[in-house]
Amino acid sequence: MSRPATRELLALNTATVREQWTLPEAIEGCARAGIRGIAPWRDQLAEYGTANAARLLRAHGLDVTGLCRGGMFPAADAAGRQRALDDNRRAVDEAVAIAARCLVLVVGGLPPGSRDLAGARGQVSDGIGALLEYARSAGMPLAIEPLHPMYAADRACVNTLAQANDLCDEFGAGLGIALDVYHVWWDPALAAEIRRAGRSRLLAFHLCDWLVPTRDLLTDRGMMGDGVIDIAQIRGWVEAAGYDGYCEVEIFSRDWWARPGDEVLRVCCERILRC
Amino acid sequence: MSRPATRELLALNTATVREQWTLPEAIEGCARAGIRGIAPWRDQLAEYGTANAARLLRAHGLDVTGLCRGGMFPAADAAGRQRALDDNRRAVDEAVAIAARCLVLVVGGLPPGSRDLAGARGQVSDGIGALLEYARSAGMPLAIEPLHPMYAADRACVNTLAQANDLCDEFGAGLGIALDVYHVWWDPALAAEIRRAGRSRLLAFHLCDWLVPTRDLLTDRGMMGDGVIDIAQIRGWVEAAGYDGYCEVEIFSRDWWARPGDEVLRVCCERILRC
Repeated sequence: MSRPATRELLALNTATVREQWTLPEAIEGCARAGIRGIAPWRDQLAEYGTANAARLLRAHGLDVTGLCRGGMFPAADAAGRQRALDDNRRAVDEAVAIAARCLVLVVGGLPPGSRDLAGARGQVSDGIGALLEYARSAGMPLAIEPLHPMYAADRACVNTLAQANDLCDEFGAGLGIALDVYHVWWDPALAAEIRRAGRSRLLAFHLCDWLVPTRDLLTDRGMMGDGVIDIAQIRGWVEAAGYDGYCEVEIFSRDWWARPGDEVLRVCCERILRC
Repeated sequence: MSRPATRELLALNTATVREQWTLPEAIEGCARAGIRGIAPWRDQLAEYGTANAARLLRAHGLDVTGLCRGGMFPAADAAGRQRALDDNRRAVDEAVAIAARCLVLVVGGLPPGSRDLAGARGQVSDGIGALLEYARSAGMPLAIEPLHPMYAADRACVNTLAQANDLCDEFGAGLGIALDVYHVWWDPALAAEIRRAGRSRLLAFHLCDWLVPTRDLLTDRGMMGDGVIDIAQIRGWVEAAGYDGYCEVEIFSRDWWARPGDEVLRVCCERILRC
């Protein structure tokens, strides 16, 4: 069912080394490590320059597995929603400029002061609808990333793969999914919803691990193999559904941010062989 | 749809004041505050004596909304599962002794070293099946408490109300649900699954709030009104489904554990009027 795990399947989400390395350093680090895919963040493009980043990525022949991130649609008022939409269009442009496979959408949580979760979800649907035509024209797929329910309030109110699939049903072409094992591993419906998503919707596949105990909601994610997620099983489901893209490592961790970037990449390369 | 919120609907889960008060102190604190329902924990019964606790609860005329907790079914081997079953039978006996409305089940997570989440869920189902006849004979309803997905690894692998309803479908009479807003507020299927549960399955209703930011996975739950959960809406759904029991406050919080118990109960009484 699965392809053999090799270093060539590995992509680096630059958040994994964001405290050690600038974007050009991460690009050069990937080249040194023999890692062929990378997913940068927008703040890094702003800092280094999108055109500079595009040139350096091309010079090293790196595949850009995604740009992190668009989304954050819900807002307290119409002006805020318009600002979010404008910013998302710029994110589409940047994703095109660096030839990203998709623009990852972290859709946003509750507007400040709100307890209206259903309303926030409605704003997400409206926001995706408003952005999608622009993204289609630009030829840039949008990838909804369902986030763990512990982020429902402040980061993303799309918290299951079923919700993401429902949005894809609603909007059709140009909308897909970025699946991160950290966010979905607990879901009893995961295997069925991966089958439902299928090859056409699965635009990115992110890896890290769930540590026991988890000491922080944001910055205590684990290196693959150090936690409890059966990554090989989920990868098997994803590949059985037709996904043949990169396995992108995205680890938010104070522990791994404290180590030299080259060491982090070396461990990523070792661990990918085991999952 | 909802009953008027009054102090008479409030029950205290003793975890809310576990750092300040022993069980007899909590019982007497409820009596002082005019709180008529209480849910103790088994370690408190062990410390104070189950018979002593039963006498003091009766003396103050308190309704016992539940005993926390049974469950923790998954284990690494058959001997461990047998120990868990034996302990659960003792928990049923204790719940009977204090005339609890139900024995709350926190079902358990992955056994040490395991990544087999489906296997753990199977062990939970097997464990409930093995316990249920004993509980039925004792006339003690079992209440599965779905826990937030962030506890799937180490506390409970039943993480949605849908899963709990599925288990109730499977086992029938004697099995119900303890619903805690903290664990389920994020679930897009919540309203539908509350309707599905209905009056006969809804055995307990727990309140606290989700704080933004949440600084700790275990001990940073909020007082009702301090977070983002639309408690009144969920309470409306629960009561529309026929629930007419207590609203049980269960707050694990270093902040509230640091305040005098009487003050905590006073704030609980104030806040219940607003949700």
